[in-house]
Amino acid sequence: MVTLKQAQDIINDSINKIKFDSKPKELYDPIVYTLKLGGKRIRPALILLGCDLFSEDISPAINPAIAFELLHNFTLVHDDIMDNANLRRGKQTVHSKWGNNVALLSGDAMCIKAYEFINKCDDRYLKDAIEAFNDAAIKVCEGQQFDMNFETRQSVSEEEYLLMIGLKTSALFASSLKTGAIVGGASLNDAELMYDFGLNLGFAFQLQDDYLDIFGDETTIGKEIGKDIVSNKKTYLLIKALELAKGSRLDSLKKWIFAKKFDSEEKIKAVQLIYISLGIRELTLKAIENFFIKSYNDLKKVSVSDNKKLELKNFLSSLRNRKY
Amino acid sequence: MVTLKQAQDIINDSINKIKFDSKPKELYDPIVYTLKLGGKRIRPALILLGCDLFSEDISPAINPAIAFELLHNFTLVHDDIMDNANLRRGKQTVHSKWGNNVALLSGDAMCIKAYEFINKCDDRYLKDAIEAFNDAAIKVCEGQQFDMNFETRQSVSEEEYLLMIGLKTSALFASSLKTGAIVGGASLNDAELMYDFGLNLGFAFQLQDDYLDIFGDETTIGKEIGKDIVSNKKTYLLIKALELAKGSRLDSLKKWIFAKKFDSEEKIKAVQLIYISLGIRELTLKAIENFFIKSYNDLKKVSVSDNKKLELKNFLSSLRNRKY
Repeated sequence: MVTLKQAQDIINDSINKIKFDSKPKELYDPIVYTLKLGGKRIRPALILLGCDLFSEDISPAINPAIAFELLHNFTLVHDDIMDNANLRRGKQTVHSKWGNNVALLSGDAMCIKAYEFINKCDDRYLKDAIEAFNDAAIKVCEGQQFDMNFETRQSVSEEEYLLMIGLKTSALFASSLKTGAIVGGASLNDAELMYDFGLNLGFAFQLQDDYLDIFGDETTIGKEIGKDIVSNKKTYLLIKALELAKGSRLDSLKKWIFAKKFDSEEKIKAVQLIYISLGIRELTLKAIENFFIKSYNDLKKVSVSDNKKLELKNFLSSLRNRKY
Repeated sequence: MVTLKQAQDIINDSINKIKFDSKPKELYDPIVYTLKLGGKRIRPALILLGCDLFSEDISPAINPAIAFELLHNFTLVHDDIMDNANLRRGKQTVHSKWGNNVALLSGDAMCIKAYEFINKCDDRYLKDAIEAFNDAAIKVCEGQQFDMNFETRQSVSEEEYLLMIGLKTSALFASSLKTGAIVGGASLNDAELMYDFGLNLGFAFQLQDDYLDIFGDETTIGKEIGKDIVSNKKTYLLIKALELAKGSRLDSLKKWIFAKKFDSEEKIKAVQLIYISLGIRELTLKAIENFFIKSYNDLKKVSVSDNKKLELKNFLSSLRNRKY
């Protein structure tokens, strides 16, 4: 059985071995740069762990895992252009380093390279693997467009928000686990259960991100907290707060949202207090916990021995306890 | 046997039948808009004609044909962002109508949709079809990056230029014909010959574009000529002129290239005259003709009866005589 750490190491080794040395270098250097920024390689690791559940041999999962990691990174490069973000994992984003055109085009190339890797799948699983991959890829686009739409809207409902993160974040977790299952030879039913498992895991993961940005411990998380408050980002917490606040609390929340000039630290503290007084903290933790429970229950239904599921359960526990 | 016209009609019918009615509409409306702009549907028609050479039934070629048309249109949408072009086929480009972010993202979605269609291929041909598709897709990106690099360079050699258009334009013609052959059940050797046939056809086609922009008949071509002269675009004609011009002719050409202020009509006429005096017109027509001959010879080698090749030969002739 492969551990999460082993899976991550296999992914990193495999990615480091890829030669992106074709020409022109302006197209390929940003791909190498992006992949070297690292990240936790969670999605590709899930493919390996997903395959491991059904197969003694995880090697068929390596190329699909690289494909999903390329897909994830391609969407980050394009998202950073759209969001005009200058930093990613503490380093310059591709478009701020090379300009928008290079970032756009090398993102495209990364997407196509992703399909080169998924196309290395065994013929038996190819169509299903590509279908799972396409499903994730198109949903990420849909989710990103909803996310952009939400920016210009006055209000977003909880339902709409969950739809959006389901597309933008959870689908990639879900399809990763499903693809791992497919190339491991799982039955259709088990592959779908793995999809659901990943979907709920993805919801929990995204809500945790929302929570940690606002109530995380700055020293543990390694970055400033409260950025989402400063930018009025429509996170789960803000959406629930706007739904639940009444009277003076609602006025106060809106005052901070519409304020043009403010001290960031002051705004963060004030909005945190509003969230606390409304019980948003507990409510968000409860929602996260619910998604973890659903996720756990999906995994339980998968028709392999409990022993085989140990590493995915450990992974689920480690995510559940994550502080950053 | 299917004619070019029939092939184009089948493509248009099939494209019109696709429902891009998922949400959010901001993502899908630009795709519908782009596909409605039309165009000659040459690449997808080539897939149908390529398949027709080897198979009684061209229906297996329809989905790959749609995939290639989506790929072509996705690259146009992204190219238009990079080139900051406002018009495409006489209509507003996607980014000038909806903004850069929507154009970027709906371009991405179009690329992924293309893979959904190529994934509908029969299992027998799937891996090879995707490989041909990926080959074209990545080459278009490489070619576009070279093209952008060339813009900022003082000089570009004929060899470099041909490499660039080989990637940016010809590879898509080549892979289209190869994919048609693959899904028609052609042998590997015939599929490669079809690739070469398309590659040379693509070179001829692009050099014709270069030629017609400068020496085409404005009323036939339906658009102003000389745009490439005004913008100093490094076309085959300019590259050859810079290579061959000496003394006062070279000075004069450079004077026009470096001029900041000029009357466009005057510049077009002057540079046309320089091209004529250097024999660039004949030289370009000769290069085009050579690529058509190569293309014809590749087709001749394909191991099916001459009778079967009639429509592709007609198509080649019609391209050879095109005035727009």
